[in-house]
Parts: sequence; C-alpha cells; structure tokens
Amino acid sequence: MENIYSHLAQIVNPLDLRKFTTAELLEVAKEVRQAILDNVSQTGGHLSSNLGTVELTVALYASLDMPPDKVVWDTGHQAYPHKLLTGRLPRFDTLRQHKGISGFLKREEHELDVFGAGHAGTAVSAALGFAAARDQAGTAERVVAVAGDASICSGMSWEALNHAGDMQTDLTVVLNDNRMSIAPNVGALTSYFTKLRSRPLVQDMAQMAKRIIQRIPGPAPRIAAGLRHGVTHYFAPEDTGTIFEEIGFEYIGPVDGHDLPTLLEVFRNLRDVKGPLFVHAITVKGKGYDVAEDDSRKWHGVSPFELEKHELPAKAGGVPLTQVFGDALCEVAADDPKVVAITAAMPDGTGLNRFAKEYADRYHDVGIAEQHAVTFAAGLAAGGMKPFCAIYSTFLQRGFDQVLHDVAIQHLPVRFVLDRAGLVGDDGPTHHGTFDLSYLGLIPGLDICAPRDGTELAEMVRFMATWDKGPVAMRYPRGTSDDSLPESRTPVVRGQAEVLGIPGVPRGDESRIDAVVWAVGSMVVPAWKAACALQDQGVHALVVNARWVKPWDTALLDELSDRCNHVVTVEENVRSGGFGQQVRDYIVENGLGVRHTLLALPDSFVEHGPQPVLRKSCGLDADSIVEAVLVGRGSSRLA
Amino acid sequence: MENIYSHLAQIVNPLDLRKFTTAELLEVAKEVRQAILDNVSQTGGHLSSNLGTVELTVALYASLDMPPDKVVWDTGHQAYPHKLLTGRLPRFDTLRQHKGISGFLKREEHELDVFGAGHAGTAVSAALGFAAARDQAGTAERVVAVAGDASICSGMSWEALNHAGDMQTDLTVVLNDNRMSIAPNVGALTSYFTKLRSRPLVQDMAQMAKRIIQRIPGPAPRIAAGLRHGVTHYFAPEDTGTIFEEIGFEYIGPVDGHDLPTLLEVFRNLRDVKGPLFVHAITVKGKGYDVAEDDSRKWHGVSPFELEKHELPAKAGGVPLTQVFGDALCEVAADDPKVVAITAAMPDGTGLNRFAKEYADRYHDVGIAEQHAVTFAAGLAAGGMKPFCAIYSTFLQRGFDQVLHDVAIQHLPVRFVLDRAGLVGDDGPTHHGTFDLSYLGLIPGLDICAPRDGTELAEMVRFMATWDKGPVAMRYPRGTSDDSLPESRTPVVRGQAEVLGIPGVPRGDESRIDAVVWAVGSMVVPAWKAACALQDQGVHALVVNARWVKPWDTALLDELSDRCNHVVTVEENVRSGGFGQQVRDYIVENGLGVRHTLLALPDSFVEHGPQPVLRKSCGLDADSIVEAVLVGRGSSRLA
Repeated sequence: MENIYSHLAQIVNPLDLRKFTTAELLEVAKEVRQAILDNVSQTGGHLSSNLGTVELTVALYASLDMPPDKVVWDTGHQAYPHKLLTGRLPRFDTLRQHKGISGFLKREEHELDVFGAGHAGTAVSAALGFAAARDQAGTAERVVAVAGDASICSGMSWEALNHAGDMQTDLTVVLNDNRMSIAPNVGALTSYFTKLRSRPLVQDMAQMAKRIIQRIPGPAPRIAAGLRHGVTHYFAPEDTGTIFEEIGFEYIGPVDGHDLPTLLEVFRNLRDVKGPLFVHAITVKGKGYDVAEDDSRKWHGVSPFELEKHELPAKAGGVPLTQVFGDALCEVAADDPKVVAITAAMPDGTGLNRFAKEYADRYHDVGIAEQHAVTFAAGLAAGGMKPFCAIYSTFLQRGFDQVLHDVAIQHLPVRFVLDRAGLVGDDGPTHHGTFDLSYLGLIPGLDICAPRDGTELAEMVRFMATWDKGPVAMRYPRGTSDDSLPESRTPVVRGQAEVLGIPGVPRGDESRIDAVVWAVGSMVVPAWKAACALQDQGVHALVVNARWVKPWDTALLDELSDRCNHVVTVEENVRSGGFGQQVRDYIVENGLGVRHTLLALPDSFVEHGPQPVLRKSCGLDADSIVEAVLVGRGSSRLA
Repeated sequence: MENIYSHLAQIVNPLDLRKFTTAELLEVAKEVRQAILDNVSQTGGHLSSNLGTVELTVALYASLDMPPDKVVWDTGHQAYPHKLLTGRLPRFDTLRQHKGISGFLKREEHELDVFGAGHAGTAVSAALGFAAARDQAGTAERVVAVAGDASICSGMSWEALNHAGDMQTDLTVVLNDNRMSIAPNVGALTSYFTKLRSRPLVQDMAQMAKRIIQRIPGPAPRIAAGLRHGVTHYFAPEDTGTIFEEIGFEYIGPVDGHDLPTLLEVFRNLRDVKGPLFVHAITVKGKGYDVAEDDSRKWHGVSPFELEKHELPAKAGGVPLTQVFGDALCEVAADDPKVVAITAAMPDGTGLNRFAKEYADRYHDVGIAEQHAVTFAAGLAAGGMKPFCAIYSTFLQRGFDQVLHDVAIQHLPVRFVLDRAGLVGDDGPTHHGTFDLSYLGLIPGLDICAPRDGTELAEMVRFMATWDKGPVAMRYPRGTSDDSLPESRTPVVRGQAEVLGIPGVPRGDESRIDAVVWAVGSMVVPAWKAACALQDQGVHALVVNARWVKPWDTALLDELSDRCNHVVTVEENVRSGGFGQQVRDYIVENGLGVRHTLLALPDSFVEHGPQPVLRKSCGLDADSIVEAVLVGRGSSRLA
C-alpha cells in the first residue's frame, strides 16, 4: 500500500505539494487516480467525474497556498482528488460508508472542506462570499471556485457570475468542462462552450497581453519578473470577447485539463492577477479508466465493482421505482398526445430515458435549472398540455417558489414526480428527500400522493394523466418495488386511502382493531411487516395505505376512530408540517378522542449510510412500528 | 370620461388596435398614459413602471393577432397598459381595491392574462412553455415575453434563455430596459446593457440582413414582399455578436421604447421571422409625468396623490418597521465591523438604503437573485462575517433550497430578515408572506423569531448580531410599529417567550387565568386588544408574546398548562407547518391536557385588499381572538 501511494502518502495538506517537482506531481496525479480506482471499486461512489479532475486538482493545489487559500467545489462529487490531497488517503476506504467520510465536501469533516455542496451551482456564490469576507477582513488569500459546465449554466451560477463581474474582486472561477453533468449537457450555453472549445488550446508562452500586466499590482520590477517567468497571454483578442469577458471576467482558455505542466503554468501565472478570472479547462469524464471514458454516464455513480474486469456488476433484483415511473409514463403518453415530460438534467435518474427516446418531441431536458423547469411546465399546462415534471425530491426544493407562485396560485395542472423521496442512503444530508411532504404540503391547492409500491405508482401515473383540475405531486423513495404486500388492489381515487386490513384476518371481519397503522408510501411495507409481527403476538393492527397526504382521507379516520382508540401514523418525512401533524391537528380539532403516535423523521439532518440502517436509526422500520403499537396499546380511550 | 378616452373606449381586445392608423395609435397611447395617471392617482399602485411601457404595449399589441397570440408579462406591475388594452378601462378605477381588479396579471381576471406573476423572472420560462405547447399542438400563434432589465438578470430568466436558445422555437423576448427594477439595477449584465444602449438606435430601413431573410419561411415572393415593405436589418454586425446572439437569439436593438412608429415597424417586420428573437427596447420609467421621470424610484409604488400637485402626500404617522430594521442594523454595524448586509434588489423595501450609504463597503445588492443572495451570505458567514440577508418573506421562497442546503446543513450563522411577512394587502396573493413560518420551520437548526413591535425588532437585531451558533430568521409584517402595548420590556433570550400578563391585573397577581393567548409577532397587539375586551367581560386572558417560533418556549407552556385549561395560539401564517401545529403537536405528545384553539391562515390563497380587511376575513383580528377565547372558555379540563 505504501509503495503504491509513496508520494500521496506524504501529503497532509496541499502545502506539501509545493515541495514536489513537476515530474513528481505527475506521479502524485497518477497515485490519486489509482487511489480513486482502488477505493471506489471497493466502496462504490462517483467515479467518472473524479477521474476527470485529477490533474486539475493537483495543478491547482500545487499553485496555491492552501491554507489560507480556499477552493470551493461545486458539488463534492468531483472532489475526491481534493479529499486525497488533504490528508484523507488513510480513511479513503471508508468513503460513503456509514460513519465514514462523506462522498461530498463537508465542513465538519475537514477544515479545507470550506464549503459543502450536494446540489449544483452553488460554488461561485459561496466563493464570492469568501472573497467579500476576505476583502472586509483585509486579508489576501486567493479564493477559487471549481464548477462543471452543467453547474455553471444553472441560474444561480449566473446570478453569482453577474455579481462577481460587477464586484471586480479577486476570484478565480475554474470551469471543469467535460460536456456532461450526469447526462450529456444541454442548453444554448453548451453549444457556446463547444464553440469556445474549438479555439486553439493554451499551450505556449507566445503572447503577453497588456491586460494581464495591468492586472498585476506592484512596481515595475514585479511586472518584469512576471515577464521573465513567462506570464502568458491566454486571453482572447479584444474583438471577440467571450460572454465571460462581457460580464467582467478575464477568460483564459481553453486549456487541456489533463495537461498537468500547462495547468501548473497557467495557475501559477495567474496567482497575482487581480480581478475576476475565468479559466476554462477541458476534461474527460472517466479519464484513465477506459470503460469509464467510453461511457461516463454509466460509470457516473457506481456500486462496488471488480477493477480488473472493467464492467459493472448486474444490478440486484427488483425493478427500480424509477423505471416503473418511466415505463408508466410511456404508456400514458402512447394514448395521450398531450402528455409531455420535463427533467432537469436527470433523464436516467428520473427514469425518463426511455420516454426521451420514444417521445423525443415531447421531452424537455432543461439542464440544471429546476426553477425554469417548474415554470416552463406551468406554461405548458397553461397552454393545454399535461406536463409531468420529474425532479428529485431534494432538487425540487430549488423550484419551491415556482411551484407555489407559478403553479399553485394559478391552479395549473402540473404533475410533479419526486423520485428519491425520503432517506436516499449513501449520498447523505444534501440529498435526502425528507422535506417534500412539508414544503409541498403547505402550498394551498397542491395535491400530494405517495404509492406503496410499483404497481400503485403506475396506477397513480395513470390517475395523474387524467386529473386536470390542479397541480398534483407524487413522491416515492429510492429503491426497487417491494411487492410483498397482499395482492389486492383498489382503484386510486383522489383523497381516498386504502385499507389493507389486519394480517391473517379476512377483510370485513375486523371486529377487533387494537391499533390503526396509517402509513405513507415507503412506510406501508414496513407497517404491514409490523402488523404481521403483532399478529403473532395476538395484537390486531389494521394497516392503512395513506395514498394521499393531501387531501387525505379524514372520512376514513372518522370511521376508524369509532372502532379503535389508537392511531399510529408513519412517514419518511420530517415531523414539522408532515402528514402526522396534519392528522394530529385533525384529531384534536375534531375531538376524535383517539390516542395518536406520530412516527416521522427527527428535526435534524440525517447523515449518510445505507437506507435500512438510517431508517432504523430514525425509528422508521417495522420494529419501531411494532413498539409504537405496543406502547400505545391498551391505553384508555380519550374522550 | 368618454371624450377623454375616445379611442381607448373602443378597444375591447387588442385586435381592435389593428383598425387604427399610426396617428390614431399615437392617440391611443396618449389616452392609455392619461388613464394610468387618472386612475393610479386615485387608487394608488405602480406608477413609474407602467408609464414606461405605454408605447411598447400599444405597438406590440397592434402588431399581433391577439388572441390567439400570447404575451407573457414579467411581473404584472408593468402591465397596466395591457389591462387597458384588453377592455378593462371601465373597471380600472377598482385597481387594487378589495374585490376590484388586481395590480398584477391574473388568469382568473381575463383570458388575455395568460400567465400571472408577482415575482420577477418568470416570463421567459412561461412563454417558452406556451411556445412548446403550441408546437406540440401544431398551431401557429406568436408567443412574446416582456421582461425588465432587472428581471432578465435573474437566474431563472437565464435558465429560460439558455433553454430557448437551444430549442430554437419561435419566441420573442422583449427587453423593457429602463435601467431599473425598483432601485437602480446592479450587476455586470447591467453594465453590459449600458454598452448595448450606446449602439445606434434602430430607426431606419438602411440595412437588410441576410439572416433575417433566411428566417422568413415560405417561397421567394414572400421574401420579396418583405423586402418591398422594408424589412430592416436591425442586427448587430457578425463580428460583435451580443451575448444573446451567442446563446441562440437574434438580437434586435436598441430601439427607443417610446418611438411608437419605429416600434410598430419593428414588431410588424418581425412577425414572420422564425426562431428566438430578442428585442431590446429602451424606456424611461415615469415617462410623461415629469416628477416620476425625475425620481422613478420614489414614484414606483404610490399611494393616492393629487395629479396636479406633482407631489406625493406625506406618509401617515408611525415609523415603518422597515425603517426600524434599517436603523437598528446601522447601530449594530457601528459597533461591529463584521456586520454586513445583503439585499436582492430591494434596498428601499428592506430598509437598507441608509446602511447602503453609511456602510457602502459592507453592503451588497445582488439584484433579483435570491438564490445567490442566500449562498453568498453563507459564504460570508463561512468567511467569518455576520451577514444580515434582508429579503421579503415572499421572495425568500426563491432561496428556500439555499437556506436549507447551503446555510442550515452547514450551521452557518446567516441572519435572515423577512420584511412583509403575513398579509401584505393590496399586492395580493403573489406577495403575501404567509408561508415563512412553515417553510423555514421545517428546516432543522434554523431559529425563527418574530418581534411584537419596533422596539422589540431592534432588540432582536442586536440579539442576532451576537448570536453566532447557527442561522436565525426574523419575520415581521408590512406596516408601522404599533407601540400600544404596555411598555414593560424583558430582554430577548433565545427560545423564551414574554408574558405580557392580563390587562388590568398586576403582573404576578394572575391567580386566575381563564385562557392563555399565545401570539406570534404581528398578532401580539390584536391579542392584547382582545384581552382588554375580555377583561371588560370579566374574562382573564393572559397574553404571551411568543417571540420565538423555533425553538419555542415549551417550558412556559408546561408551567401555564398547570394553571389554565385553554390555550389559544394565533399567527399570521398558514396552518400547515405553522406555529400552532407545533404547539398542538407538543400538547398531545406531552399529554398537557389543555384545550387548544388554533388561529392561523386558511389553506387557500388570500386575495388582495387592505390588511385589516384581509386579517379580519381570515379570523386574525382582536374580535376573532375574543371569540376563540369565549368559545373555548369553561370547557372541562382535558386530562
């Protein structure tokens, strides 16, 4: 182990890079790449994006004084080289493992993780904040933001670039341009980047610009020194200013993001240049691992695999809910030409890849632009279409205002499809979709449903295609469909729950109900398992599949509260504003007089780890439901 | 009346404009301007922005076939001319009056209000949705978005432009460039617009571009006809492509937005041009009313005034809470160089105008860019500063994800200051700040407080300046400080409520408490008034000023629930996820056995109207509180 990483093992923080020669830094880069491959193949994680940033990170860090210099990474999944160059090689085999190091940057994990991020597009904003704080404090550290070409197209990146260009403080934005976010990048700016990429690569010391000299402060000797060391003009000629120059940046590029010597020269030469700089580096996702270079999308986020085999293991059994949705949407689209689909840079993750192929003219990938995605969908709905806007639960937070202001106030029938609702597992707190029932539930006129499994998910898609009276959101978890529930189906009707019954007791014969377990979506299967375990103990727990969180089935609760004195609600969402609080509010307001046990996620951010482990630790598994029923059992009826 | 508006009165919808000559259209424009002045001076409303869009709207509408053509206005407060040209002259005197026509576009109000908006930056997204729906349906109507220069800089506008440039469908974006949103516009793009404005104005038929011909479909005769009628090349030369051209639009401009004949010619000539077009019109806010031209910021939103006097009436008595905040922040800034302020294009509205003058180096107006504002503030906090991020309650919805993902997950001590929380009055549903306690309350680790009046607001600002352990938000309503409460003050301590007592009963002597009224912020004064009225009836209502919504004072509730069996909570926020539901949840969870009456806003959007009228209609006034106490009084204690 030590021999393999002989250079890397010496690096405690990036200042250690300064003692290496360029030849040695090339070795460092090789070791970083190897460490990524060795570890990610064991732990799983983001592969392609990190293989693409190896040389960029080594060169950048070797040219900075860090600390105190600061680098803000836009989404941590391109920052494994950063982790390895900041002394985390010894712990790198715990990557994304429960209690291990995070797959993203995390302020609590390391002092050089100056700003964490799982959502894209935040780096320039945060870096500009650091720069403004530096200016206020009167210190002189360099601040760098590294953002991908998809991230830089997000609205908030443009807001930040617009502000940075205006402020004219010292800030370097490095564009890691690999033509991809997760899927191929889209949008007019992407074509523009292609145009920029066609320029001659920065690779020699040919020109020396007036502008760059002007931006180096200090007396003439210093400028002379700069000249002597070959400060190069990498800037475009005056008459063809790039967009970035138009908004106040100096544009440097394009530069080969794997050409370590040139990168070193560029970053070192730019160290004393004042004002906002924009460095355009071209990288290859998956660089150095052939199959990942060939299909970086497939190798973006991987499960553990055998490095030598150069192939990913087959996915474990079960149909992903993601795919169930994609297939169901294709089915309704076949019958209804008004069905259109919108995604924000996640065709694979939202299951729309099949739809994209079969209904290309009705498919819109808007890039990392959730705000626009939502209001664009609102426009489509106002124009008479039936838009399905498929965005992960955690990313739809970006479109919260648009859901409220553009969709709900106008009662426009946009169909929101929230994959990855609930605890997502290894990606951790920046990705958990544990707030949607609350942030959507507070919006007047927005319906919310949650299927218990794949079959019901498909049924809900069919329902949503026909429901034109207002907006509706469907949320479901990451994972495969668990079809272990008794196979009796009732049609999906807006606002109506489904009574699954008591295990072992024929439907209709539930004369004795010890507790009602009212479960939302992902919690229905655990609720049923709990009820089965309770049945073994002679406790009759009636399981209700909520189906609807808004409007929810108050009539059923009225009826059941006459027959049972204990209701347990269980949901994979935070407590505040969630389903349980609505039920509790209703029970009190209407004096139902039943005891209510509320199971929901705590008021804290949940760390990363396997879904089952996290659910258990949060009290959202079958055992916890059993306990909730038993604790509440036999308590006297409240009147 | 008829004589004054002789042309305008004939216009039921914009198709009627097509029968007028240019000379007559000039008369129409004159009448539109007069109608705005005549009415807004009576009703109050947005003045400067609407005086600036008169000729633009007349020319645009005279060149379209509307319906079925569609125009989407970015924020309705520049769209009074639109209202007047769509048959609403007879009702225009009800503008912004309760039950009258809205100050914004509203789908329910008129079929040609195709898309409503109070928040900026949505028009291009919505218009592109209409265009995509049209393409899908196979119809041929024109779709136009009109956006201001500040709106177009918002992140979501850029997301939409990026998508539109890529889609290459037929869409016209008209930039209404008046160099202002409400305050002078900021950001690098603003400088860029200035550069574009310096180009020669479009005003003759001198050139004919190849590109524009290529974009006109159909056989040669049609092109020839176009030529004969003088289709003009308004495009920039190839070698100096504008940003808009770089991302796939044809840029036409700049054009004088008050030169009606030229505007007519431009819009008519562009009617058959395919693909995305960007028309840059330069307008003057307040055009045609001298004092509004001179100080458009002052005359942006006005109360009723005397048209002939050319001056605004003095503001009614009382210090606006907005100003209280601004002054308090200046005070803490004087003692603490780490205090910095951020606003998103609202220096006046958030009270930061004084701070901007006195502490210019610590003041950041980022433009209409709430997402960036929040994460920029997070970066400042991570860099050791004490950022106060002042954004209206309704606009912070735009930064919801950033508050959660960038600030709260990282426990960064950003201070959020939410003006206009609760019902704002005449601006209506797009502007009511009635969701913040819910959408902020669901975020782990984010504290929330609400002052009862200006004195407490200032005290809370001082508290926030010293509180460095995590993020905190303060929310307060639109309006002036009501200092009618008894003047006894206790220091603000995190998580502690303030017991105001029972009117007429000396503090400490409250041996009999018939009800506890626990009020949040704006509801404390009504609660006290209610308690006074109840005292007259011999009912002892103890008023608690919540101060904190999160963490809230559960210890005090524990104590009071031993002494009283009825608690009324009252808040100017929706019920779902609000303060009352947290209290109710706690009461049930801890078996406090008190009766709880929950007063909050209903689960629906509240229309526009005077604040007191709206509050009353929603059951949030002193009378409603009196009733709540009386209904709950004497009910047996729940055990």
